[in-house]
Amino acid sequence: MAKKDWKSEAKALKKKVRKLKDSLTAAAAPMAEALGDAVGEVVSAAKKALKPVSPLAPASFPSLPVIKGAEFAAVEAGVRYQNRKDVMLVRLAPGTTMAGVFTRSSTRSGCVRDCQAKLAMKVPDGAGAAIVVNSGNSNAFTGAVGDKAVAAVTGAVAEALGVPASRVFSSSTGVIGEPLPYEKITAKVPDLKAALTEAAIEMAAEAIMTTDTFPKGAAATVQGDGGVIHISGIAKGSGMIAPDMATMLVYIFTDAKIGANQLQKMISRNVDATFNSITVDSDTSTSDTLLIAATGQSKAAELKGATLKAFETALHGVMRDLALQVVRDGEGATKLVEVRVTGAASDEDAAKVAFSIANSPLVKTAVAGQDPNWGRIVAAIGKSGAQADRDRLSIRFGDILVAEKGWRNPDYKEEDGATYMQGSELVFAVDLGLGKGKRSVWTCDLSARYVEINADYRS
Amino acid sequence: MAKKDWKSEAKALKKKVRKLKDSLTAAAAPMAEALGDAVGEVVSAAKKALKPVSPLAPASFPSLPVIKGAEFAAVEAGVRYQNRKDVMLVRLAPGTTMAGVFTRSSTRSGCVRDCQAKLAMKVPDGAGAAIVVNSGNSNAFTGAVGDKAVAAVTGAVAEALGVPASRVFSSSTGVIGEPLPYEKITAKVPDLKAALTEAAIEMAAEAIMTTDTFPKGAAATVQGDGGVIHISGIAKGSGMIAPDMATMLVYIFTDAKIGANQLQKMISRNVDATFNSITVDSDTSTSDTLLIAATGQSKAAELKGATLKAFETALHGVMRDLALQVVRDGEGATKLVEVRVTGAASDEDAAKVAFSIANSPLVKTAVAGQDPNWGRIVAAIGKSGAQADRDRLSIRFGDILVAEKGWRNPDYKEEDGATYMQGSELVFAVDLGLGKGKRSVWTCDLSARYVEINADYRS
Repeated sequence: MAKKDWKSEAKALKKKVRKLKDSLTAAAAPMAEALGDAVGEVVSAAKKALKPVSPLAPASFPSLPVIKGAEFAAVEAGVRYQNRKDVMLVRLAPGTTMAGVFTRSSTRSGCVRDCQAKLAMKVPDGAGAAIVVNSGNSNAFTGAVGDKAVAAVTGAVAEALGVPASRVFSSSTGVIGEPLPYEKITAKVPDLKAALTEAAIEMAAEAIMTTDTFPKGAAATVQGDGGVIHISGIAKGSGMIAPDMATMLVYIFTDAKIGANQLQKMISRNVDATFNSITVDSDTSTSDTLLIAATGQSKAAELKGATLKAFETALHGVMRDLALQVVRDGEGATKLVEVRVTGAASDEDAAKVAFSIANSPLVKTAVAGQDPNWGRIVAAIGKSGAQADRDRLSIRFGDILVAEKGWRNPDYKEEDGATYMQGSELVFAVDLGLGKGKRSVWTCDLSARYVEINADYRS
Repeated sequence: MAKKDWKSEAKALKKKVRKLKDSLTAAAAPMAEALGDAVGEVVSAAKKALKPVSPLAPASFPSLPVIKGAEFAAVEAGVRYQNRKDVMLVRLAPGTTMAGVFTRSSTRSGCVRDCQAKLAMKVPDGAGAAIVVNSGNSNAFTGAVGDKAVAAVTGAVAEALGVPASRVFSSSTGVIGEPLPYEKITAKVPDLKAALTEAAIEMAAEAIMTTDTFPKGAAATVQGDGGVIHISGIAKGSGMIAPDMATMLVYIFTDAKIGANQLQKMISRNVDATFNSITVDSDTSTSDTLLIAATGQSKAAELKGATLKAFETALHGVMRDLALQVVRDGEGATKLVEVRVTGAASDEDAAKVAFSIANSPLVKTAVAGQDPNWGRIVAAIGKSGAQADRDRLSIRFGDILVAEKGWRNPDYKEEDGATYMQGSELVFAVDLGLGKGKRSVWTCDLSARYVEINADYRS
């Protein structure tokens, strides 16, 4: 059709649609008047009450074992949110060892810098410790005012609990660049202290949520020499940075007897394959924090040899479980995807390919659309910067061989791929056929809901 | 409210909504029946006819000067699309010099590898050249079959035009991993040859479109020694990879007299600040190609000294204009954003920061939502890996100073930022306050429409 005909036909159709729309509107008007307001009110009330939980969420919060020497409390301080607990406190008994890993962001928050400085300090003999966390305001990019707020909050906790200030660690999560109303937190420290109990860890997990749709917890037990060792962890995160909220926060508690140096080495060793292997939107937060505290109050002897190994395996499991829960709560997520890369020339190359696929908006939108679009995986491999050879790589959806030898597997059927993509947990396995390098990372899909959540004007 | 009360209230509300919905449905049924089908049909016809053009598109295709010695033709070959031209041919007169830059993807297509090999070959004396391009199928990741298709298409053109096969360059853009039905193209070579004319460059620009919403062209003229030199360029691209389509393709023609080596150096030097400074979705294609051909048929003398410089400036302008048109046609784009980084410790650091901001899904969704969310820019700077100091960096929206000295500018008003974000062309200027490194890159917003386009199942 010539361009002009096409245009005039388009115009004519537009006119028809407008007419039909007008007549529809006229017919619907009386009905709309009668029902409209009532429906609107009920729907908005229902929406509020039925705040949607991620379809990938676990059925319920797990039952976490009590960690002797670790007490929890949470209160409503009204930092930003109303009618919900938004500050939590943990008191850790004297003798507790601590370790942590943090965001490497060059614009990281005052809390993070403070935690890092304190972990490097010598621990006063017999000192206990504490962790205080608020949601609703991240106190990030708030300059010297923000540093003052950190000092005020940790100072108030130190004084109330009789713990050295150098042993009070804090985190803040929420909007960036707004001054933290820290007086609202310090005013609640007496209430927090009064509420401390070893049983309240779930409440603590709820108090640190921002755009999370469910609280996150994981646990493990290990048979030590002379007694059982317990590990209980909680986390928050829903997008590396949520709308204008920031942050992944993780707190793990154990009654194991283990030195701070060994604890630090252990979490540093295990963070790459767990928390550093998840990506919701490739955006790293200014406040990411993982703190671990070992109270040493288990009856088991100091960890060493086989029990040390068993403990590390159990700890890895808890870290991985919490990390995957963060992806499961990714903003707008409807699918959990493991990208499993093997056969790379090196582990570094495997990581490049895995993250290139897991962060590709085109791969992630295809997953949202349940489209087995393996061409986009090929493109993501190509752009990763890792060594790759078109004719040696293979791509699998779960067990389905999709492509190999430089082309689509002749036995691959598009229907099989399409059926596979309807699952809620997917594995994309890429073998590069070059060496022994490998890496698995986890991500979720990029849905229109993600854009809606993040394009909403801050309220 | 206790969790249980909350749940039962939610249930009750759900029930109410269901009831109201049912009564609404019942009342609407007769009307829907009467109008539904008719409206549906008209709407879908109208949608097809009114294929939306990007709101950032130029008013019209520019008038491109004729390049003596460069003839164009385009035909309908039905490679994938129906009822539109999908193959274009360019014949270049004997004496034409050629140069090119290509995707660095390790899974790049057979066409790209073929072009690279041919550009490295010695040019037979007095040989002309040709470029043949199809849309609808990228012939990427199609193994040895794909290489055969490249040889067949370029061979057929070489024979028909009496040009050595080593001087016939080809590109393919479209779906990945499907065999290219090259016989459909070779069958049309006689028609293409018969249609060749110096005036048909706009038709060529239309034939190479995939999900592009408008054809892209740009031109410049330069006063040379003894005559005017002309430059005319065309491009396609709409997302580094479109839905399941691939690629950015750029072809620039000039009648300048310039050697192939000098031409190659010139485009290599200018590609970083132009085509390598745009990003729609951080996904690099398997087929990106830029080819330039200089026919030498201007009356102006061989380029040197001041005219060589003037030519390079004009060529840079054409490259930049075409590059920005690709961003303007970004999938779902509603805003064009320049991210301008200055004061970095090095140019490399400036590029890291600029791309970290331009590729951040959170920054891009904020732009889509017209939210002046400068906290996300701070976070993107932090995660970039470049040297940055919270207390020395500043952020501006256009001329509005938003943040400096580690915090929000006390005079900044959120309303001013919000008003600024309503524009369709935005500048985010970041000064790191550390050195002289700088880089500007261009991107567009990430809208729900981008996800819709890319989550649609391939049809």
